[in-house]
Amino acid sequence: MTRFALTVEYDGRPFMGWQRQDHGPSVQAAIERAANEITGETITVHAAGRTDAGVHGLGMRAHLDVARAITPFRLMEALNARLRPDPVAILACEEVADDWHARFSCLARHYEYRIVTRRAPLTWEAGLAWRVPQELDAAAMHDAAQVLVGRHDFTTFRSAHCQSDSPVKTLDRLDVVAAGDRLSVFASARSFLHHQVRSMVGCLALVGQGKWTRDDLKAALDAADRAALGFNAPPDGLYFLRADYP
Amino acid sequence: MTRFALTVEYDGRPFMGWQRQDHGPSVQAAIERAANEITGETITVHAAGRTDAGVHGLGMRAHLDVARAITPFRLMEALNARLRPDPVAILACEEVADDWHARFSCLARHYEYRIVTRRAPLTWEAGLAWRVPQELDAAAMHDAAQVLVGRHDFTTFRSAHCQSDSPVKTLDRLDVVAAGDRLSVFASARSFLHHQVRSMVGCLALVGQGKWTRDDLKAALDAADRAALGFNAPPDGLYFLRADYP
Repeated sequence: MTRFALTVEYDGRPFMGWQRQDHGPSVQAAIERAANEITGETITVHAAGRTDAGVHGLGMRAHLDVARAITPFRLMEALNARLRPDPVAILACEEVADDWHARFSCLARHYEYRIVTRRAPLTWEAGLAWRVPQELDAAAMHDAAQVLVGRHDFTTFRSAHCQSDSPVKTLDRLDVVAAGDRLSVFASARSFLHHQVRSMVGCLALVGQGKWTRDDLKAALDAADRAALGFNAPPDGLYFLRADYP
Repeated sequence: MTRFALTVEYDGRPFMGWQRQDHGPSVQAAIERAANEITGETITVHAAGRTDAGVHGLGMRAHLDVARAITPFRLMEALNARLRPDPVAILACEEVADDWHARFSCLARHYEYRIVTRRAPLTWEAGLAWRVPQELDAAAMHDAAQVLVGRHDFTTFRSAHCQSDSPVKTLDRLDVVAAGDRLSVFASARSFLHHQVRSMVGCLALVGQGKWTRDDLKAALDAADRAALGFNAPPDGLYFLRADYP
């Protein structure tokens, strides 16, 4: 068996999410089907993050084990040929040690959340960003975001379906960067709770609209109660950017 | 009659181009249909540029005349409401003088051509950029591009269907800007010949691949012969950025 690490880009719009589902298409199933066709083996693909329906990947990391002899380059080319027309692309493929695990070896995960502030509907970006019809105060959002950085009980920002053992996580970075009518929120942590990034972004948007202050965001965090959540941003704007490994 | 100037964004993928066609959907027809529904009038929309099938608009300018009393803001909102689900959005709408003409008053047109250099297929960008499977030497492309800047006979870079009176045009800017595996070519001129930007980009890509030198590009220009054209880039990567007026 040889273990291969993949770097995967995908458009989340047509998928029920990363994880294999009985009731619809998933990124995992698309890659597994392609890998099975190439190798004749029953292959399971493991990812750094199991993104939700409609969430995109620019540099998702994943791994799979193959018994048949094949070079990383040939495997990547064959996967890309068989993934068409699904909007999933293998950007890189390398051989890794047998104990390298896309999920469990991961030291940090990096997300970007993209917002477009304008009244007009989105055209080519529909489903690729969250449209907010008002201007947002990016400086106020960035300032407020810093109350979430560090080690906290993030229960307020956690979905009811979250399977994490603990709501305590360490958020390493939450930066708000604006240019014209585009605004991005960059979030980095070893791991996130289910819906954590979208929930944090939803509350930051309230700050940007002037409906919440930095203190309101702090109070919501301190409440450690999902009922204190201001708003959960839609999946459209969320991108898994990259993952770090030892 | 009141004349309104529009700023229009559109995703060119589902359209036969800007111009109304008998055999398929067009951006012009989509806006005219919406305007007719709002006003009950038979309205013609004129644009700064009649982009080809698959070419996109980020800030196309257009105008239309309306007899019914309506504010620019209400007209914009009503157009956007009726344009759905077509990927066309009115970003701005203003009242202009009766002699303001989106096409004939235009002093300069600005295009961007987007290239992604990688072997893997595009996912969310499919149809929104030209994928070139090799690395391109952006510095060599930018250097060669400067031989095209200025007043020249651009017959080499002109489609057989071009309706321009003269092949002599003045190219004000042709800049190649790269960042990672993304490369953009920015082109500005008072007006362009049909297929001129795509034809210039196709030849610049040959320079970027090392197949053509700056001198080869100069020779192709000097030939003033369509047969000397190296390559016509696909419409996917072309965006009408904006237009300038007095």
